[in-house]
Order: sequence, then C-alpha cells, then structure tokens
Amino acid sequence: MSKEKIIMGIDPGTTIMGFGIIRVVGANMSFIQMNELLLKKYDDPFTKLKLIYDRTIELIDTYHPDEIAIEAPFFGKNVQSMLKLGRAQGVAMAAGLSRQIPITEYFPKKIKMAITGNGNASKEQVAKMLQQLLQLQSLPKNLDSTDGLAAAVCHFYNQGRATKTKSYTGWAAFVKQNEDRLK
Amino acid sequence: MSKEKIIMGIDPGTTIMGFGIIRVVGANMSFIQMNELLLKKYDDPFTKLKLIYDRTIELIDTYHPDEIAIEAPFFGKNVQSMLKLGRAQGVAMAAGLSRQIPITEYFPKKIKMAITGNGNASKEQVAKMLQQLLQLQSLPKNLDSTDGLAAAVCHFYNQGRATKTKSYTGWAAFVKQNEDRLK
Repeated sequence: MSKEKIIMGIDPGTTIMGFGIIRVVGANMSFIQMNELLLKKYDDPFTKLKLIYDRTIELIDTYHPDEIAIEAPFFGKNVQSMLKLGRAQGVAMAAGLSRQIPITEYFPKKIKMAITGNGNASKEQVAKMLQQLLQLQSLPKNLDSTDGLAAAVCHFYNQGRATKTKSYTGWAAFVKQNEDRLK
Repeated sequence: MSKEKIIMGIDPGTTIMGFGIIRVVGANMSFIQMNELLLKKYDDPFTKLKLIYDRTIELIDTYHPDEIAIEAPFFGKNVQSMLKLGRAQGVAMAAGLSRQIPITEYFPKKIKMAITGNGNASKEQVAKMLQQLLQLQSLPKNLDSTDGLAAAVCHFYNQGRATKTKSYTGWAAFVKQNEDRLK
C-alpha cells in the first residue's frame, strides 16, 4: 500500500499569493484545498510579509504538508520588483523551513509544461486542465489562486520521475538528491 | 528610570550575514554581541536560507531583542542578485515576524550617515566609529560582521528622534507610526 502524502503548492507574489493542497497516494492525487491571499489592499511591505508568513504557517499547521512546491520566476522587470518578490518568496520559504518541510522550486514554464504539455499555456488552459485532473466542480473567479495548486500538481508529476532518488534522510540529503529540481 | 531595551541589527547577504546586538538604557547603549554567518561555502540556496533562518531564530531566542533593525539595500547589479538578496532578507525578516518583533529597515547610506556623519563612509570608518562608540577592545578581521552592529546602532540613534511616536499597541500601529523609517 502506498503511503499518503500531502503536497502544498505556493505561488508567492506581492499582490496576490495562491495556495493549493493535494493528497497523493501512489499514482493518484486528489484535491484538498485551494485559496488565495489578497495583498493589494495593504500598502505597508511588512504587513504583507507578515500576512504571507502567518497564512503559510496556518496552512502548514492545518494540513501538515509533507512537501512544499513553490512557483518561482527567476526573471522580472526590474531590480526593485525582484527584491520584493524575493522577500515574499523568502518569507513563504521560511514558514516551510521553520517546520522542517522540504521545499522545491519550479519555474512558471516548467509548471505549465507539466500540467498542459505546453510551457507557454495561458492561465485559462492551466486552470481548465487542473479542473479536469482534480475533478474540480468549479474554478475560482481569480485564476491566480490556481497557480499554487498548479505548483503542487507539477511537484507530484516530477516526483514520479524522481523515484530513484526518493529515499533521503534529511534536508541536506534531500536537497542533494534533487538538485535538478532546484533551478 | 528608563527601561532597558535590546536591539538586534542584521545585515542579511547571500555570502555573509552580519549580526550585532546592543543594550539600550535611556540615551546609553552598550555592546552585547557581534557575529557573522559565513554562507559562501554552501552552494545550495535552500541550505543558505535555512542557515539564515535558524541562526536568526537562535539569536532571537538567546538575546530576546525588543526590536530588529535590518540593513537593506534597494538597488543591486541585476534582477537575479536582487531576488537572492530579497530571499535572504525575507527569511531573516520572517524569523523576526515569527517572534512578533518589530522590524525597521535602513538603507546602507543612512546607517553610515547615522554612525559617521558621512553617508559615503568606508567600512573601516564605520567600524572604527563603532569601536569608539561601544568601547570595543578589538574589531573582527572581517568587517562585514560589523554591518549588523551598525544597523543596531543606527536604529538606536533614530529612535531618539522618534520619541514622539514611540507608543504603539501592535505591529500595524508601530509600522504606521514609523513609516518614515520604512524606506
């Protein structure tokens, strides 16, 4: 019997943060939760970071994910926006690190590719495919909130391919064995 | 009698992280601790972030700072280095946020100005002035580790100027009342 595993996907942004949680048993996955944190209305950068941290910790402590997948663009329009994005990512990552949960990053293109087979798929295409894969009755109005879920599903697909190196004894070993996913 | 306050200063970088802790009573400050975390030898970005998080938490739980000051450049050479710097900052900030400690950011120039009177002072000038102000018997070989201490001292000087707004009842109120320091 395959062990159950919970995967939490996060898309950390400075105006919206998307979260998605799935349950995985062997080659099967099922939907648990999807949500978004709207940050646009808060002007203060520390309030935003605190909200990201608190929400991530709250979700971790509610759903006890075994692994976290983060959507992480490595390019942006300017240094200041990347600094802000880096902070948002850092705060979300710290929430995972504080609970000793392994984190894997994925480029947006890799996530789109994993889910739709097309690295340049639109948000709508990704959302529709997620709806089909996870038998979601409906999609949220704001498709940004599906990005976190997409990261979780991408992580599930990539783990299937990484079964040869799936045994690990700690964080450092896990990281070492999964360097190809830490791009 | 003035209440004692502990201020922790952090200079979060991706190759070295400087920490400094001072005790403040009224208009007097005294040196408690200064240290650095060398990150150069770790290739893996998550190992670095985990070390930054763990060390910051460890220092917080050892010295119980009332306030945290962070040296935060807002400009860098390219988007990727700023993303990495933002993550390092975010992780350090999350450690403070997780312990409900107010965080204030300072530009490097503001810190140099507060300590030496010259926003373009060299690392050596800042270090020598810190040595004099805090009666340090010696300076560390690596002057990067004084940058965290410099942030703490800068915060102390800036608080003197902000006494009119020093009462606050929570994080949001504190932030609101100190927006001029959140640049």
